[in-house]
Amino acid sequence: MVKALIFDVFGTVVDWRTGVSREVEAFCGARGLAVDGIAFADAWRAKYQPAMEAIRAGGRGYIALDVLHRENLDATLSEFGLSEPIDAAARVDLNRAWEKLPPWPDSVAGLTTIKQAYAIAPCSNGSIALMTWLAKYAALPWDAILGAEIARAYKPQPAVYLASAAALGLTPEDVMMVAAHNDDLVAARAAGLKTAFLPRPHEHGPGQTTDLEPNSQWDVIAADLSDLGRLMIGKCSTPRGRDGFRRG
Amino acid sequence: MVKALIFDVFGTVVDWRTGVSREVEAFCGARGLAVDGIAFADAWRAKYQPAMEAIRAGGRGYIALDVLHRENLDATLSEFGLSEPIDAAARVDLNRAWEKLPPWPDSVAGLTTIKQAYAIAPCSNGSIALMTWLAKYAALPWDAILGAEIARAYKPQPAVYLASAAALGLTPEDVMMVAAHNDDLVAARAAGLKTAFLPRPHEHGPGQTTDLEPNSQWDVIAADLSDLGRLMIGKCSTPRGRDGFRRG
Repeated sequence: MVKALIFDVFGTVVDWRTGVSREVEAFCGARGLAVDGIAFADAWRAKYQPAMEAIRAGGRGYIALDVLHRENLDATLSEFGLSEPIDAAARVDLNRAWEKLPPWPDSVAGLTTIKQAYAIAPCSNGSIALMTWLAKYAALPWDAILGAEIARAYKPQPAVYLASAAALGLTPEDVMMVAAHNDDLVAARAAGLKTAFLPRPHEHGPGQTTDLEPNSQWDVIAADLSDLGRLMIGKCSTPRGRDGFRRG
Repeated sequence: MVKALIFDVFGTVVDWRTGVSREVEAFCGARGLAVDGIAFADAWRAKYQPAMEAIRAGGRGYIALDVLHRENLDATLSEFGLSEPIDAAARVDLNRAWEKLPPWPDSVAGLTTIKQAYAIAPCSNGSIALMTWLAKYAALPWDAILGAEIARAYKPQPAVYLASAAALGLTPEDVMMVAAHNDDLVAARAAGLKTAFLPRPHEHGPGQTTDLEPNSQWDVIAADLSDLGRLMIGKCSTPRGRDGFRRG
């Protein structure tokens, strides 16, 4: 019996590409610098998986995503010819673009519905700090912040899913992983969790070719987070929880 | 500039004595067993500090409070002559009494106010699971769950306060520890945090003699959590946060 839903965040709950491009353009604009925000966001994000892969492969110990984002920011600024005008203090601020990402239009309503009957938490590769400040910005009503930092590992390593379930005192089969990325769900299912897919066909912009459809029989397939809320609340005749709880 | 407030929970935010005694009496009553719930709650809680002390002293590795509570429950049941009628499965349920504690009347309103302008999280010796399910039960609107499990140590060890601040990406002086226990604040201040005291004169019942007053010049002294909310919101002319955030 599912008691908690844990969520991929970048792409699934928030629109990182729009948010980062907006922050980069505002930041550069205030300094009189021209930049293609979307191109910058894509270039910055393209360094995300390789940076984590160095840690997953064991060549580097766990380092919070904020630090990897900062290293990748330095490289991206260099590629865009912006190394010189943007100093270290300014880069600390710009790196927080990842804390200021807009939720998809259905995210807050969907999470709020799901929270009535289940514990909800991010299971992201973002750090506790990043996930907490992003939640403040985007009004995401998490019950706890789980994911990579709890496990000191990066998805899709099984430790991240298993540590997140264990941190709630639950077995993997009592937890459902929610993502807009099929590969995240492949890993979650292999770790014993339930799975829910929803498409985010514009995460990568109008030309997106990946994850437009579920590629497996996931436990639940929803249109978006509001739809997932309706489906999950519909699945239980009485409010659930660890033993049931008063909220909602 | 304070950007986050972190809170002691047992006694400061929730009334553990009333909650545990109520759960124990309901649990035993359903089984036709007589018990003095308040005496049982006090006896169970009396084993809390000694159990953690074995870990603080280094003789035992970090073990989540849920496990210590369960060990202490076994001992308390024995003291009360209830070992035989309450089997292992029932003890798992009864141990969750600590997840079903009522908030003090001002807690939810006060936390909700404070959350408008600061990040809020428990900095308790309770585990992530315990704090999450308790928050679901009592409708505590935490932004994140910090404290002992993040640090794998127990208050008043400095690691718990320092790890909680670090998990938010903040320096200790940007974080305020809130507690109804002077000794908690002594340790938090020594770790470099700001401090706020509020009395909970009935935590230990009508005869309480400890922590009735602040015993030092804490940064803020409040009557209760609603009062703390008024004081902290009054301290900032504009909403604060990591860089300011939209919520509230």
